[in-house]
Amino acid sequence: MAKTKQSKAASVPLSSLLRVPSGPVSMADFDPAATPGFPGRDKDDAPAALESLTSELSDLQERLYAHGRSDAEHARSVLVVLQGMDTSGKGGVIRHAIGLVDPQGVQLKSFKAPTAEERAQHYLWRIRKALPSGGMIGIFDRSHYEDVLVVRVESLVPESEWSRRYDELNAFEAEVAASGTTIVKCMLNVSFEEQLARLKARLDDPTKYWKYNPGDLDARAKWPAYMEAYAAALERCNTDIAPWYVIPADRKWYRNWAVAELLRETLAGLDVDWPKADFDVAAEKVRLAAAG
Amino acid sequence: MAKTKQSKAASVPLSSLLRVPSGPVSMADFDPAATPGFPGRDKDDAPAALESLTSELSDLQERLYAHGRSDAEHARSVLVVLQGMDTSGKGGVIRHAIGLVDPQGVQLKSFKAPTAEERAQHYLWRIRKALPSGGMIGIFDRSHYEDVLVVRVESLVPESEWSRRYDELNAFEAEVAASGTTIVKCMLNVSFEEQLARLKARLDDPTKYWKYNPGDLDARAKWPAYMEAYAAALERCNTDIAPWYVIPADRKWYRNWAVAELLRETLAGLDVDWPKADFDVAAEKVRLAAAG
Repeated sequence: MAKTKQSKAASVPLSSLLRVPSGPVSMADFDPAATPGFPGRDKDDAPAALESLTSELSDLQERLYAHGRSDAEHARSVLVVLQGMDTSGKGGVIRHAIGLVDPQGVQLKSFKAPTAEERAQHYLWRIRKALPSGGMIGIFDRSHYEDVLVVRVESLVPESEWSRRYDELNAFEAEVAASGTTIVKCMLNVSFEEQLARLKARLDDPTKYWKYNPGDLDARAKWPAYMEAYAAALERCNTDIAPWYVIPADRKWYRNWAVAELLRETLAGLDVDWPKADFDVAAEKVRLAAAG
Repeated sequence: MAKTKQSKAASVPLSSLLRVPSGPVSMADFDPAATPGFPGRDKDDAPAALESLTSELSDLQERLYAHGRSDAEHARSVLVVLQGMDTSGKGGVIRHAIGLVDPQGVQLKSFKAPTAEERAQHYLWRIRKALPSGGMIGIFDRSHYEDVLVVRVESLVPESEWSRRYDELNAFEAEVAASGTTIVKCMLNVSFEEQLARLKARLDDPTKYWKYNPGDLDARAKWPAYMEAYAAALERCNTDIAPWYVIPADRKWYRNWAVAELLRETLAGLDVDWPKADFDVAAEKVRLAAAG
């Protein structure tokens, strides 16, 4: 019976388990401690779970990269958007999940509060500049969603402005997808209680002081407003070409595995094949033999 | 006896074993199949050798990064220059050695033949733009040394011009070092015979066609001229602040381990400590407890 259950679980793609359903969204509906689809029982099984997908993930990433180098005109790319409250583990995901693939095929971009130069432009200006090039996996550590999250919660622009951004974001993402980029949006869902524990840990360990920012407590104080803003973004920008996934993030080992597995499923879905030779293989073998 | 030998080997830093000696250099003096300093017998021991340095390497990289974020004014960085003939494994080193550390702390730059825009500038213009920022490990896949390697062999500029570049490169690297960047230059030394085997493998395996470039055979035909150009660069630009190391590269497992170990030794030598808190830890603990 256990075996049947396990093979059933493995046959359901993780993307379908974590995809935000259409319709009204409330963050209360998502359990931050859940471990849907995990091919094991607990933390002890996590290294093996990651290990077992690494080889295929690595192979798929290399195909995407090779294809991008060989056929620039039809190159594909992937964009992984990472959003989440402080301590939800965007950095941890990059280190432990994205770190599984060849760094040569990854373009990382971390978005901070916009600079004066960036503020002088449309809010999507800096985002467009950071889109992954052909063959690459782009990772956004925070993203254009900050423009309907912190901007909304802190009233950095009037409601009349942020309220029309949801449609703008959908239009922008449609454009990005049309240019050959597959978008995967991950909301790392950490609980209010677990955030407290992680902030405490940072204050208790001198090797973690550098990760602590007194401003994090100000955002924590506005938790309900942030959850409302997340729910709005997940509800209104959850298109089939740029879907949202909620990744339970209270268990770091699950969170890391889940993002790696989502990336593997995404790459497998692209079905990119090794590029054909753009030279005469037989003739080159003769040349090489002659060159000695 | 074996034990004594082993602990002796471990006590000599790899950097001193692989450092190019001062004085006249001939590439014939370096054995591409050697495995100096390797803490094991052969390929079978390589995964364990890499594994045993990964945790310290990772810790040291995080300190460098943390320090760079916390004290921008005194930030340190590391620049690893990778040079070598085609198939010597620059990509393999990035994947398997550099891939061991957090991608968030790595800035990769691959230098191709200069574009029209780059050719219109001084040859160091594009190099300066790619230098690692504070706290980062920069990796150059090819580098400013192409300007005294392919440029010299192919006579892309007159000898009167390339011949004065050696001094310019030393002056440039002194300037980079003075700004807080530790430079580690690695020449991945593959043999003429092993290159043949690797090119053959690329032509025999459709998943490797994309790595094959017919132009590689043209460079191979000029092997002695390239070895002469490498020897000149290794002899004339081998300063204590920007030393050259020759990494035997016929055995991929040794090559990857050696670069990872050189990087570990380099980071350990920086002796960067975790940054102190730039906030009042006790006060923040009180705030956090109150925030709940």
